[in-house]
Amino acid sequence: MFKKTGVILLSSALLLTGGSLAFGPEQGKAKKTPPPQANQKVENVIFMVPDGYSASYATNYRWYKGEETVLDSMLVGMMRTHSANSEVTDSAAAGTAMATGEKTNNGMISMSPEGEELDTILEAAEERKLSTGLVATSTITHATPAVFASHVDDRNNEAAIAPQILENDVDVILGGGKEIFLPESKDGKQEKNLIQQAKDDGYIFVEDSKALSNVKKEEDKLLGLFAEGPMAPELDREETKQPSLSEMTDAAINVLKKDKDGFFLMVEGSQIDWAGHAHDAAWAMADSEAFEEAVQAAVEFAKKDKNTLVVVAADHDTGGMSVGGYGEYDANLEILRDVTATGDFMAEALNEEQSNAKEVVKKYAEIDLTEEEISQIRNAEEPANAINEVISKRALVGWTSTEHTGTDVPLYAFGPQADLFAGLHNNTDLPHLFAEALKIKFE
Amino acid sequence: MFKKTGVILLSSALLLTGGSLAFGPEQGKAKKTPPPQANQKVENVIFMVPDGYSASYATNYRWYKGEETVLDSMLVGMMRTHSANSEVTDSAAAGTAMATGEKTNNGMISMSPEGEELDTILEAAEERKLSTGLVATSTITHATPAVFASHVDDRNNEAAIAPQILENDVDVILGGGKEIFLPESKDGKQEKNLIQQAKDDGYIFVEDSKALSNVKKEEDKLLGLFAEGPMAPELDREETKQPSLSEMTDAAINVLKKDKDGFFLMVEGSQIDWAGHAHDAAWAMADSEAFEEAVQAAVEFAKKDKNTLVVVAADHDTGGMSVGGYGEYDANLEILRDVTATGDFMAEALNEEQSNAKEVVKKYAEIDLTEEEISQIRNAEEPANAINEVISKRALVGWTSTEHTGTDVPLYAFGPQADLFAGLHNNTDLPHLFAEALKIKFE
Repeated sequence: MFKKTGVILLSSALLLTGGSLAFGPEQGKAKKTPPPQANQKVENVIFMVPDGYSASYATNYRWYKGEETVLDSMLVGMMRTHSANSEVTDSAAAGTAMATGEKTNNGMISMSPEGEELDTILEAAEERKLSTGLVATSTITHATPAVFASHVDDRNNEAAIAPQILENDVDVILGGGKEIFLPESKDGKQEKNLIQQAKDDGYIFVEDSKALSNVKKEEDKLLGLFAEGPMAPELDREETKQPSLSEMTDAAINVLKKDKDGFFLMVEGSQIDWAGHAHDAAWAMADSEAFEEAVQAAVEFAKKDKNTLVVVAADHDTGGMSVGGYGEYDANLEILRDVTATGDFMAEALNEEQSNAKEVVKKYAEIDLTEEEISQIRNAEEPANAINEVISKRALVGWTSTEHTGTDVPLYAFGPQADLFAGLHNNTDLPHLFAEALKIKFE
Repeated sequence: MFKKTGVILLSSALLLTGGSLAFGPEQGKAKKTPPPQANQKVENVIFMVPDGYSASYATNYRWYKGEETVLDSMLVGMMRTHSANSEVTDSAAAGTAMATGEKTNNGMISMSPEGEELDTILEAAEERKLSTGLVATSTITHATPAVFASHVDDRNNEAAIAPQILENDVDVILGGGKEIFLPESKDGKQEKNLIQQAKDDGYIFVEDSKALSNVKKEEDKLLGLFAEGPMAPELDREETKQPSLSEMTDAAINVLKKDKDGFFLMVEGSQIDWAGHAHDAAWAMADSEAFEEAVQAAVEFAKKDKNTLVVVAADHDTGGMSVGGYGEYDANLEILRDVTATGDFMAEALNEEQSNAKEVVKKYAEIDLTEEEISQIRNAEEPANAINEVISKRALVGWTSTEHTGTDVPLYAFGPQADLFAGLHNNTDLPHLFAEALKIKFE
């Protein structure tokens, strides 16, 4: 819905004041591309992965935000995402491609389809004495961070991934998944306490936002595990003591930047994907916002540093999201700004007969459900799914799948040698381009 | 379906022979971007619009084709598509943005929301003595071609558009819609015979493929109307005497290229969009192929000519198409290669009781329908839609809408000053960039 929103008010205001934000009808002026920076030296690479974030997420998020995003100014190309055995990749195979330069089968973590271990760009950076870091809002042993510093044939084997990340001597490790590092926890599968081992190996260990903010930049190695399992969705984070993705990104850069040999840091906005699987449009937008804030933090550092390349690429689309849908020439992303909880959270707040659906959805989504929508939620096998479908339809966010889809995704870069990423790439190109920018050997 | 297809056979063959086509797992080598060509002179602009062709169409078409496409090598950026009154544009408002540099409301043809006529880039080119051309597979008075050479407040008023295109003295006009130019035809709404008027004004008039191929390049002005209404879908074209989109493109270039002042040509692959509205995945792919052949023709001319800029941008996505869908990690585009008719055509071939659905779909789509699929088609209000849904689900092509959606679309360019189009643009940027490349005034 276009005319009733803050968006149009914004652009009208800009017209009156001669402003030039993107939404006004006067936005006709040609945009200049930044000059190529091919010859500037790259000392640091920050690779950021908004898991599941295809062009429709980028477009919907721009409407949700009401103005152009930092990513909009960084678009340089697009990227193919297929795996070795399917047009539609999972995050393990997509991550493996972006970490190793090789296609593998869905489910595999930096191993070839035949089970060979594949060298990763993070390992190559370490060999050349660069510092390295992994940041995610999932468990840090989840597929996307895992592919950079471990090799297992089944992504679900997170217990095998945790010790490998430590053995790989990744300097900064921030995310969820504490229980995966411990023998005594609920899902504990370790023989020994890996957190204690990390401390013995010189890592400082933190468990909440406050401790993270107190980490001194002199620390050599940093392990932060902020939740037993995955970290909280952005919509529910304020209830916790967990840091935001941008706080983790800032903290990682702060520790890594003192290495004169440079650093390679991977930052994942893990839960955009989970929101897409759940068709939870509000969660997808809130986690896209958290991701954009992390990109902003990285870009601000890169602007000051001048030798840092920031590259952003999703691993795949999730859910076949569309901007509009349902046979309407319209989209209502602005209603999602009023949603303050995930569908899962709202479903938890339902009573046993789900007779309070109207009140719960009003409280957390500012939506007055119709009788039809109420009965849709009350009769659903999975009320969370039904709540998400109702909100998606209200926002006119369409979906074609509960799993990933295989469309090419946008590719973004900022900083010296950003132009290396111009045009259409395969996901396997990325680590080779990182190596080329860093002038390190990677074949 | 990945392993059973020609695609994988192809890439295996390439591995064996050391080839490097895009689909092989070895495709890890970094791709070099072409050097910027900012200083080369642009004399001609060929602007090509694959109506409805978003990133998912591009990806699906690549799988359908089994190898990278000419467009893949031309990707330079992406483009926003919204109109003045909606996040989800129609073709009239999107075309107006790309022809005039101004956003307008859905439905309007190169008029502002307030009803003012907006100057178009084609008109500006004519003022500077460039030759001009419009080519489409819809009626030539349909929204996308219409916006370049007419001004009406309702896209459906094609009778008002036809005389304006002639008055605007467009040098080459090729497409469908003969009946719109005639008073005596079925839908004839003209007071006089506009075809006769065009002939009197010096146009040569042709009506079929053969006559088009015989047009001499010395001709000044060319009017080709190859169907009473829209031209035939690519899948059904062989039954007709209609030229292909690439034949029309070649013919247009052949007449226009003699102008030493240069030319501006717009070529639309109109029916990719109609296939998307119908969820007819095979039609969408066949018309994408016809469009790619037309791009190939334009690029071949540009390579020889060296002063021709080819730019390709869809006006919007149609249907919210996805690559995969339906909860599967898979896509089966290759089955669409065996489909030889549109869903509409197949529905026409059904008998009254639709008892021959199995035979018809076997004959034209090489698909053995299940009992469930047969009853889905027989019980459908619109059998063509049901046939298209069955085939889309078999091919794992997802859809979220019967109308357009609002995702950013890929932007492609080839030739001198192609780098002007790098990055994320708004659709209103395009005519300004064409003018900048051609060094003509357009504000």
